[in-house]
Amino acid sequence: MGNLKAKIKDTFWSKYDALVRDVVIPYQRDALNDRVADADPSCAIRNFRIAAGEEEGEFYGMVFQDSDVAKWLEAVAYSLENHPDPELEKEADEVIDLIGRAQQPDGYLNTFYIINGLENRWTNLHECHELYCAGHMIEAAVAYYEATGKRKFLDIVCKFADHIDTVFGPEEGKLKGYPGHQEIELALVKLFRVTKNKKYLELAKFFLDERGNDPYYFDIEWEKRGKTSHWTGGKGAAPSKSKEYNQAHLPVREQTEAVGHAVRAVYMYTAMADVAMETGDEELLEACRRLWNNIVYKRMYITGAIGSQVHGEAFSFDYDLPNDTVYAETCAAIGLVFFTSRMLEAEPKGQYADVMERALYNGVISGMSLDGKSFFYVNPLEVNPEACEKNGIFRHVKPVRQKWFGCACCPPNVARLLASLGHYIYGIKDNIIYTHLYIGSNTEVDIDGTKVSIGQETNYPWDGKVSITIKLDGAKEFGLGLRIPGWCNEAKLSVNDQELDLASAAVDGYAIIKRKWQDGDRIELDLPMEPVRVRSNPLVRANIGKVAIQNGPIVYCLEEVDNGPNLHTVVLPKDSELEVSFREDLLGGVNVITAQGEKAKVEAWGLELYKANACIEYVPVKLNFVPYYAWINRQPGEMTVWIRER
Amino acid sequence: MGNLKAKIKDTFWSKYDALVRDVVIPYQRDALNDRVADADPSCAIRNFRIAAGEEEGEFYGMVFQDSDVAKWLEAVAYSLENHPDPELEKEADEVIDLIGRAQQPDGYLNTFYIINGLENRWTNLHECHELYCAGHMIEAAVAYYEATGKRKFLDIVCKFADHIDTVFGPEEGKLKGYPGHQEIELALVKLFRVTKNKKYLELAKFFLDERGNDPYYFDIEWEKRGKTSHWTGGKGAAPSKSKEYNQAHLPVREQTEAVGHAVRAVYMYTAMADVAMETGDEELLEACRRLWNNIVYKRMYITGAIGSQVHGEAFSFDYDLPNDTVYAETCAAIGLVFFTSRMLEAEPKGQYADVMERALYNGVISGMSLDGKSFFYVNPLEVNPEACEKNGIFRHVKPVRQKWFGCACCPPNVARLLASLGHYIYGIKDNIIYTHLYIGSNTEVDIDGTKVSIGQETNYPWDGKVSITIKLDGAKEFGLGLRIPGWCNEAKLSVNDQELDLASAAVDGYAIIKRKWQDGDRIELDLPMEPVRVRSNPLVRANIGKVAIQNGPIVYCLEEVDNGPNLHTVVLPKDSELEVSFREDLLGGVNVITAQGEKAKVEAWGLELYKANACIEYVPVKLNFVPYYAWINRQPGEMTVWIRER
Repeated sequence: MGNLKAKIKDTFWSKYDALVRDVVIPYQRDALNDRVADADPSCAIRNFRIAAGEEEGEFYGMVFQDSDVAKWLEAVAYSLENHPDPELEKEADEVIDLIGRAQQPDGYLNTFYIINGLENRWTNLHECHELYCAGHMIEAAVAYYEATGKRKFLDIVCKFADHIDTVFGPEEGKLKGYPGHQEIELALVKLFRVTKNKKYLELAKFFLDERGNDPYYFDIEWEKRGKTSHWTGGKGAAPSKSKEYNQAHLPVREQTEAVGHAVRAVYMYTAMADVAMETGDEELLEACRRLWNNIVYKRMYITGAIGSQVHGEAFSFDYDLPNDTVYAETCAAIGLVFFTSRMLEAEPKGQYADVMERALYNGVISGMSLDGKSFFYVNPLEVNPEACEKNGIFRHVKPVRQKWFGCACCPPNVARLLASLGHYIYGIKDNIIYTHLYIGSNTEVDIDGTKVSIGQETNYPWDGKVSITIKLDGAKEFGLGLRIPGWCNEAKLSVNDQELDLASAAVDGYAIIKRKWQDGDRIELDLPMEPVRVRSNPLVRANIGKVAIQNGPIVYCLEEVDNGPNLHTVVLPKDSELEVSFREDLLGGVNVITAQGEKAKVEAWGLELYKANACIEYVPVKLNFVPYYAWINRQPGEMTVWIRER
Repeated sequence: MGNLKAKIKDTFWSKYDALVRDVVIPYQRDALNDRVADADPSCAIRNFRIAAGEEEGEFYGMVFQDSDVAKWLEAVAYSLENHPDPELEKEADEVIDLIGRAQQPDGYLNTFYIINGLENRWTNLHECHELYCAGHMIEAAVAYYEATGKRKFLDIVCKFADHIDTVFGPEEGKLKGYPGHQEIELALVKLFRVTKNKKYLELAKFFLDERGNDPYYFDIEWEKRGKTSHWTGGKGAAPSKSKEYNQAHLPVREQTEAVGHAVRAVYMYTAMADVAMETGDEELLEACRRLWNNIVYKRMYITGAIGSQVHGEAFSFDYDLPNDTVYAETCAAIGLVFFTSRMLEAEPKGQYADVMERALYNGVISGMSLDGKSFFYVNPLEVNPEACEKNGIFRHVKPVRQKWFGCACCPPNVARLLASLGHYIYGIKDNIIYTHLYIGSNTEVDIDGTKVSIGQETNYPWDGKVSITIKLDGAKEFGLGLRIPGWCNEAKLSVNDQELDLASAAVDGYAIIKRKWQDGDRIELDLPMEPVRVRSNPLVRANIGKVAIQNGPIVYCLEEVDNGPNLHTVVLPKDSELEVSFREDLLGGVNVITAQGEKAKVEAWGLELYKANACIEYVPVKLNFVPYYAWINRQPGEMTVWIRER
């Protein structure tokens, strides 16, 4: 399947699009240029000037500082695609020119090593993110080329990729390495797709296939460089002590469980799916399915977040999904969207789109405040602000979104995903146009020479009614696949006011309508939303005896601002009704859910810490649920997604 | 109040006494002498030989390695008190001789600094445990003197204390420091009590009163020594960044909350109570009461364990009592016993003895296996072994007891407490003999020239019947205070078969019987035990909706070996009966409790991680509870104290 690019015009998502354009991209540009007054300098642009020999100074920042510039350019590219902006484009061109001037004659491009000594390049793939930064540069260049048609940036990264290809590969004399932080693999597939140069695809496949082999490459390079570690500044432990962290514990085709650093994992799985598709490698695709199933059936939060532990920012083990000590990095949820979109390309199944939707509407956008000015790196599902401050196991959990980060991976990652969201709505395969997401938008596609335009209108996710209008010259036979979300049991579908039998149209979570479409044909899809109680597999220790509320794709939570403190004492009776109402005035306009609940009368208990044969008194309370993604946009306080029930 | 020393002859505790004598003390001696084959060498004795100039070599081990030798000698002393053993005494005398030979002419005694350079002594009180080790040496010497009557060790530590008194004090030219790890304060009070030399009491008071003053002493010495840190080996952060860790954030009299490293805290509070008693300092005693109340009403586990977080091995905040990420160091529960015993001395109130009993029967002895060969440092109240292995937040929690530790504080601390348990049973104040603990034992006390002997027989904690027999020549008027435990509502008391009205005899948790006692008078106390459901203050997040089972002083738990895996899915209905039976064959002979419960039928759920409108099926199961202290003496597995209820 190929993806189509749609232009978004949507009550829900256009706000995000505008935020990225008006707030995030300008803020990020200022940050990269060290113009944000109250923040530590980034020096990311300055590093390029030093590397280009245009300024004196030392490299500053994280070893992967270059990737911030790349992610910004990628977000700019997507934004320009939808909203031409000559001034922004000029700024981007100037940055690209600077990148070009920093590039070495042999194509090498990484300011850390250009500034600190090229003799050390490619000696510490394990820790130093060289190939990771290259990957982001390539992704940005591909996006910029596709948005603007300008080749300069693309030429820069092709030259860089060509250089990398002279260094790494199966041929004798080349290094048998692969990145410590996966990213370049998926980027090389993008570069292959735009340039049609198979070398890039083969290099991506090489990096994937080398990973997990014996002897362990990261140990080899560690021995070779004198057993030093970038992070300690001196000697370091053998990298083989933590092979799972980089998913290098087994050849990728043999991996069955999602382990290690969650972002690296899903970036790698994304590339595995890409390479499997491009090469028809069924074994590799089967590995993707296994890893997918392991995540989705055993290691994913209800918000689509992944990564259960701060140690290694990593997966932990099956059904280990603590809500409070969680990691759930915004970037990992974004990576899951990438992985999902590739699985959808490989095989159009509703289960993939369900997870993509779950992550997008919950664990991804929870990462950014409604004003686009602050960000979560960690997205907890349960927060007690005092605990975050006073119990060290919560040190990584911030009870409010932060302005920016020393390691600034999440904000630009959110920006580039939101700016490119139009790429995730539609796919096409075998003359069937699949609608994965319900987002107001327009797209055009050429089917055997016929230009077909699809317009989608909806008030999703606050209402499940979707109108789709087909425009084309004359008539054309093709299929339209409309996803019936997993959360919806009573979908209704009509074409030109004629209801279709959904059961007979259903294939793998999509209703497939094949017919000769006429200009002006109108599809009405009704996906009735009603709030439901969701429960976890009983093996999930953190959620036993608890329930979460979901309405359509939106996961809800209780916040202290609406429900008072001590949310752990709240109980939702099994039979209390869940009522939905749209609140225009609240959080940018959201469906809220109310229910009759109970809460402990803490003052009735007295001072004792433990009492024999005494019960806690409960009093009735009205519970007010708001969408999880929108939490902590008012005042700080407790929050919980999972509520005890009785 | 003074404490009386009793000789224990008890079905429950004599086993522990024997273990300490037969297993722990010999093992520890071998460990200190590097004779344990499968363990890292301790070198603790070797350090003394090097310090004495009798062997070449370098200091090895933790900076507080000397304290292991001291704690061993202290345990030996208590053991000799009850069980004379000339061979053991000879071994101890030899170690004491060695200590004497290592002592410097000026009285200084610490192998780390003697070996590494005396010029650095007293330059890093914050990190280097010099005064802490001195404290343990003093405690050991006092115990050894009291057990054997031999002065040599006592003279050694007096000389050392005299030296310390020349270095620290309010006088000009002396250092205004205090220990980084409190311990010497309570030891100096013991030294004062045995020598009657007020200087030692004053030095203890000085150390307490200096703490928390401005400017911050640990910063001053840090600046003076060039801002170095013992632990980093190079430069270190300003100690004032973590004042609470050492309870140095406020003058001790102004402290209201138990904060920081839990062991340091309770050792300090113990000394505060000691000094308050010896000096009649009501302000200081009031601070002790405040801190006591903060612990017992807000920061103590049901097992008497304290310390909610691994970060700093520390208290966290009110009602923050996670059962799984808990620290609950064995040494901290022991320290709480110390603090408790001093509060009881200061004011005989049953609430103190209740906590002492709670800690002893649960959080202290849980630290040692039933064979005396393995130990917990951390005593969790809920364990999932897979989580301990695979989720980093549980890295400090071991699912089975360990043989010994690199930092070997807990095993010898358990040993010295168990060997001296006879000191904690009785106290005397104003001619009333208080019975704090019900333990089979004999004690003698002189009341105005009359020798009174008290014999106690009981099958406690498996049965609440206690018989006390008074022996004396002739008749004598005095009071007997019998603690009525907080867990007991229907106590019965009779003297020579004549029932007494408990209500009229009750004073602060004790039944006080004042009469002219005759030889052979017999008191029968019946404290009926029945298993009860204990619930927590609703502000305790970790225990909401959960119940724990207690019978008499014993807290129970569920183990996987008796109840299968997935203990989080177990539910105890509010109305199911709790049945007690004594199992001679199990865990050395214990009361077990059974109840009809329910458990999730996990296989009925299917593969989904989340389901809307689906409920978890439960099936009836028989629940088997065993005493918490005895857990993990069979096969490894899950364990939980708190069980969900419905």
